Parts: sequence; structure tokens; C-alpha cells
Amino acid sequence: MSERIIYLNGNYLAESEAKLPVLDRGLLFADAVYEGFGILDGQIVDFIYHMQRLERSLGELSIPMTFSIDEMFHALMGLIEQNNAKAGFLYLHVTRGAGDRAFHYHDQYVPNIFAFTQGEKFAADEMPPAIDLLTYPDLRWTRRDIKSTNLLAQVMAKQAANQAGAYEALMVDANGLVTEAGSSSFFFIKDNALYVRPVSQEILHGITRQTMLRVAKERGISLIERTYSLDEALAADEALITASSIYVLPVEKIDGKVIGNGKAGAFTLALREGYLAKARDEFYTTKAS
Amino acid sequence: MSERIIYLNGNYLAESEAKLPVLDRGLLFADAVYEGFGILDGQIVDFIYHMQRLERSLGELSIPMTFSIDEMFHALMGLIEQNNAKAGFLYLHVTRGAGDRAFHYHDQYVPNIFAFTQGEKFAADEMPPAIDLLTYPDLRWTRRDIKSTNLLAQVMAKQAANQAGAYEALMVDANGLVTEAGSSSFFFIKDNALYVRPVSQEILHGITRQTMLRVAKERGISLIERTYSLDEALAADEALITASSIYVLPVEKIDGKVIGNGKAGAFTLALREGYLAKARDEFYTTKAS
Repeated sequence: MSERIIYLNGNYLAESEAKLPVLDRGLLFADAVYEGFGILDGQIVDFIYHMQRLERSLGELSIPMTFSIDEMFHALMGLIEQNNAKAGFLYLHVTRGAGDRAFHYHDQYVPNIFAFTQGEKFAADEMPPAIDLLTYPDLRWTRRDIKSTNLLAQVMAKQAANQAGAYEALMVDANGLVTEAGSSSFFFIKDNALYVRPVSQEILHGITRQTMLRVAKERGISLIERTYSLDEALAADEALITASSIYVLPVEKIDGKVIGNGKAGAFTLALREGYLAKARDEFYTTKAS
Repeated sequence: MSERIIYLNGNYLAESEAKLPVLDRGLLFADAVYEGFGILDGQIVDFIYHMQRLERSLGELSIPMTFSIDEMFHALMGLIEQNNAKAGFLYLHVTRGAGDRAFHYHDQYVPNIFAFTQGEKFAADEMPPAIDLLTYPDLRWTRRDIKSTNLLAQVMAKQAANQAGAYEALMVDANGLVTEAGSSSFFFIKDNALYVRPVSQEILHGITRQTMLRVAKERGISLIERTYSLDEALAADEALITASSIYVLPVEKIDGKVIGNGKAGAFTLALREGYLAKARDEFYTTKAS
């Protein structure tokens, strides 16, 4: 089997050739941002929204955006083609660049940009598994709205979940409030309403979250936007998570406690189906493509 | 001028050849730890203490330590020799290793290890400059005792300081308590006592800090170990910071407010001199060296 092809600074390279200098600030300081996209039908899901978030993350850190959205679209579609990726996950990473080690930066750094694809976790159009969550303290920094590579708190949370046989971690802050899942957004349904934690610096502004909420609104589902405790989540009728690599997944258990009847609920399945339909409706195209 | 030589996984390479795969977890997740050492008289300062902290950081993250302390000593002394580094900074970095992107890990990753040297900031045996600090909110995660590469909060703090013309940031938590400086430990002197924030998960367990405190104890300086507010620090007679790249430096101003008489104070200069003497007394040697 031939190697996966990786995009690096304008080139398509064999995986074993795709390397960055050890002095890259992405390695030294996690001075880097990223996006993860779904690949569906060989297309990039929610492309423009992810790119807008990437642009915002770069701006928050004053990392120059050295490419246009359309240039990156063509680069990433080329990568998908090179890897013959019909379904799965697409990852894009931008570091500030490499140089002598000093925390502060200047405007002479040249960003390093790479992207790669990975296989899908669950087939988009098949019945999804109902997954388990393990609660874990939210150890993260205070700027969770920036999609940076400072992810060690999430690594620790998701490792604890994995060791406990759970699919994902559910992060709970020092006040007992649920923030979000380790690498996904969390929601629950109670009495026919969808409970949604509002966006702030305390959670990532999930792109799959945002598109799914548009679906929920279009379908007339009541939204209750507020923070909530773990106990409220445990008493839900349905619970679900969203992320670009999994779209929408039902939650069966949290810390071993069954949510609702433990099966993928009607709201969750409708939101998943609606999300996938909207994603397919909204594939990005450019005049140049 | 020939290139700097970098240590990477057992080899000494030209800087332009020292690269890691883009799929290294150090890049993807900041799943990596590091140490910075002073180089003095061509020797490594506080070597054993830094290595003990590195071992602890690795252990906290379940990253295997794939080398002995003596093996690393010889590798790093070789690097110092290759670069003819008599004084300056030595950096050592250990990532969990490279692989397909998934937050959780397994025990098949092979750590990637690199090290490099940089020039000194201030000559050890000359009168040090009195530096300025800028206060900045402490945005960091809650496991600041692990010396990981999740450093973006410090990058932001030190960038703000640099833009304001200050040498270093002084991080203040949401309760108005001083935690520490951006990449150094902070102390102040008031009424002949040295005020020291106790170690916890809220601050890094500074190695230069620890050795300097041994000097302070040996010299009979009263230590007051407790948390303190920014206002208390501003009312100090002297203030100082410690780090492996600068040893001990006097602080002239915090947010433009002069501390004490604004000159390097007697306690600070005695602690710097005592620190350097102790560092030279305690250079590491092995039987095999």
C-alpha cells in the first residue's frame, strides 16, 4: 500500500517526507491553530464556516493568514483527490512558523501549513452507535474559543474516557457546570426542548454545532440556551454530541448512568439526518473550481 | 558561519536537517514536555534537578522516559561541545511520538527527543539589568506544575509585555493574586523577608527558584511562604525573577510603577551571586564522564 499524501506548504508529499523544523513554534509553544472537517461524498463539509473560524483563530493570535479561502479550498480538494478520500476526516494546521526560541513573536515568521486526511469513524448514512461519556474535570485554559493546539487537557480527559471504555469525555467545570465534551459539543433534550450552552470564551464555537442548530431551528425544535449542571444532563430524555469527525452521535450513558431509555432518540436521529442533508446541500464551490 | 547543531533522537544534525513528522503529537496536541537549562562555564546548571522535574512531567502524562539521566547528560554535553557553547541556554524537548491523529494514546508511540542551544541573554558575571514587568491575566490551564508545551497563554502574556516595552509578564489570577511571571518565578522582599508563593498545581515548580531558595535559607534570609496580591508586590522593597535562562534578575518596575528605589537591591544581588556560586559548586558529573 502506498503512503498517505500530506499537504505541506503548497506541496503534496509522502507522509514520511512531511516534516517541520524542531524550532517551529507549533512544537515549542503550541503557537498554532487548526480545523477539522468532515469529508462526505468526496466533498468538504461546512468548509466556509470552518475557514471563517480559522481566520478568527489566526486573528486572535495575530498569525497572518497567508492564503485565501479559495486557494485553500483548491489545495484541500487536491489533497482529497490525491488520497482518493470519499469519506472521513480532513485536518488543517497553521503554525506561526519557526525561529530561535523566544515566547514573544515578531512579524518575520512564515507560517507553516499542513493538512492530511484520515478514514471515517462511523459511516455517515448508517445507523450511528449510541456512545458512552465519562465525566472529567475541565482543566483547560480560559480562551477555549480559540481553536489552538493547546490540547493537553483534552488529551488527558479523552485518555481517561478511553481507559474507562467510554467513547468521549464530558468536561465539567469547578462549579459543576457542563462545558462541553473532550473534542465535541454536547447537548441534551428534555421535555422536547434542546438544551444548548451559549457560546463564550468557555467553550469552542463548534461548527457542526452551529449547522446542527440551524437545522433544529428550521425544524421548529425549542432551544433553551443557558448553562446547566451535570445533574440536569443526567436527567435528560436524550443526549447527543456533535463534531466534524462524527457529525451527530447519540449518547447512551454518562458515567455508566443510562440517559433516557439508552437508545438513539427521535430528536437525535432527526438532527443527524437533517445535519447530513444540510451538509450535502451546502458543499462549497468556487467560480474557479 | 556554519549552522547550529541540533540533537534529535540520538543524532547531531545541522539545524536545517532537524525535523519532526507533522503527525507528531507534540504538534497536534502539545502532548510534550520540556526543560530549559542554563549553560555556565560550558557546563549544565542544575542538571539533576531539571532532569528530576522532566521525569515527573513525563510521569504525569504517562510518556515513557526512554533514556537514563546519565545517557541524556552525555548527549547534552556532546551537544554543548558541538556548538562550542560556553554560556547560554540549553533546551530539551520530549514528545509522546507520532501517529494517526486521535486524542487518546496507547503504549506504541515512540517519543521524539530533541535539544538545542541558544546564546546567553545577559552575561552571568556582569551586573544584571533591572527589568520591567507588565501584569497580564493568568489564562493558563490548571496543571501548571507539568512543564508541558501548552504555552500559548504565556506567549500571549509575554507578547503583551514585549509590545509594552517590558521584559517579562507578571501573571495575576482572577482573584487578584500573583501567580508567577510569564516564563520565570517571581519573588519580592519586604522588611528583610523574601515572599515566596508556595508550590502547587497553580505554578511551575521552578528549578532556579528551588536552588535560589536553598541559597536564601543558607544565608538566613526569612522566608514568608504564602500567596499574595499584586498590591503587596507593588509595595515591595525589592522584586526579582528567576529562570534558567536568566538566573536571578532584579525588577525595576511593574506596570510602570517603581519597586523600592528602582535599583537592583542588596538582597537580589546577593541571591544572584549566591545562586551562581552554588550552580558552579554543583555541576553534575557522572562516573562514566
